[in-house]
Amino acid sequence: MNIVNGIMLAAITSSLFVSTARAADDSNKFSPLVDATGNISRPLDFRRNWVHLGSWLVKDDEHASGPGVHDVYADPAAVKTYLDTGKWQDGAALVKAISAIQSRQLTTGNAQWAGDTGVWFVMIKDRNKRFPDHPAWGGGWGWALFKSDAPEKNITSDWQGEGLNNCYGCHLPAKSTDWVYIEGYPTLR
Amino acid sequence: MNIVNGIMLAAITSSLFVSTARAADDSNKFSPLVDATGNISRPLDFRRNWVHLGSWLVKDDEHASGPGVHDVYADPAAVKTYLDTGKWQDGAALVKAISAIQSRQLTTGNAQWAGDTGVWFVMIKDRNKRFPDHPAWGGGWGWALFKSDAPEKNITSDWQGEGLNNCYGCHLPAKSTDWVYIEGYPTLR
Repeated sequence: MNIVNGIMLAAITSSLFVSTARAADDSNKFSPLVDATGNISRPLDFRRNWVHLGSWLVKDDEHASGPGVHDVYADPAAVKTYLDTGKWQDGAALVKAISAIQSRQLTTGNAQWAGDTGVWFVMIKDRNKRFPDHPAWGGGWGWALFKSDAPEKNITSDWQGEGLNNCYGCHLPAKSTDWVYIEGYPTLR
Repeated sequence: MNIVNGIMLAAITSSLFVSTARAADDSNKFSPLVDATGNISRPLDFRRNWVHLGSWLVKDDEHASGPGVHDVYADPAAVKTYLDTGKWQDGAALVKAISAIQSRQLTTGNAQWAGDTGVWFVMIKDRNKRFPDHPAWGGGWGWALFKSDAPEKNITSDWQGEGLNNCYGCHLPAKSTDWVYIEGYPTLR
C-alpha cells in the first residue's frame, strides 16, 4: 500500500465508523444530555457555562411543594434562538436548581440566598416526538428530576403523574408559554 | 514612493498611532468599562454573556435599604480566575441588578421573582491604585451605581460616603472576602 492509498483507506474507515456510531444513537444528535432510549442526564456545568434566565424564591410555608431558591439556566444556543424567534429550539436544555434558603439580617435588610442544592429539574425540548412511549417525555419536552442523594438518577416516573416527582401539576399554569414560566425570566424579556 | 515603502510607512504610522492611543488611555487596558479618568460604565450584556454568581431576595420591610431581587453576575474571565486562584483579577467586573419583587401564589407555593430592574451596582477590581484621587475608587475596587431613570450616570459620589448611593456601609460585612458576599454565590463555592 502506498502512502496516498493508506491515507484514503484511513479516511474511508474513519468516515464509516462515524456514520455507524451516529446511526446507532440517532437521538444523541439533538442533545448531549439524552441517550438513544430517552434517558436524560443532569448537566454539570450550567452555573459556569449556561445563561441564567432568572431566579425565584418560593417560601417555605404550608402551601409550598417546592420551597427554596430556584435558579434557572438554559444552554447558550437555546437562549440565542429563543431571543431571535420566541421559540425553544429542538434540543434546548433548561435546568432549575432548587437550594435551601439561607437568611440573615444584613445592613441592606433581611437577605435570603441559596444554600446547598437539593434537587435539579431538567427540561429538554423535543420537536420530533422521539420517545412516544417514554413516560418522561410529553408536551414537547423531556422532563427530569434529580435529587442530591442520587444525582445521577432521573426519578420522574411519569411527567403527567401525580406527586412531587412529576411535572405536569406545577407547570400547568405555564402551558400557554410552552410550559416555561417566561414571566419570571428577565433574560428572556 | 514605491509600493513597498508605502506599505512600510503605513505600518509605521499605524503602529505609532496605536502606541499613542494606548499611552493616552492606559487605564483602558484593564477594563473596557473604565475610561482614562476612572469613570465607570454600566455593562449591558451581562444577563446573556456573563456568569451568574447567585441571587438574593431582600425583603421589603422597614429595615431594608435595598429591597428587591438581587441578581449578581461577573465577567467569565474573572470567574475562571477566581475559581482557579480564589482572587479577583485586575479588571474583574461584577454587576448586581436589583429588581422589583413580583409575587404570586403558584402551584408550588408562594413564588417571588424579579420584575423591572431599578438599579445596577458595578464593581471593578483595581490592583494598581489607578485612581487614588477619585472618590468612587478605594478598597481595591471601583464602585458604581446606576439608576433606571438615568442608566448612563454613575451616581456613587464617594464609595465611603454615607447614604444609599454609596457602598461602604452595605459592603462592610464582606470586607474579609475582598468586599464581595461570596457566601451567597453558589457558582463560587
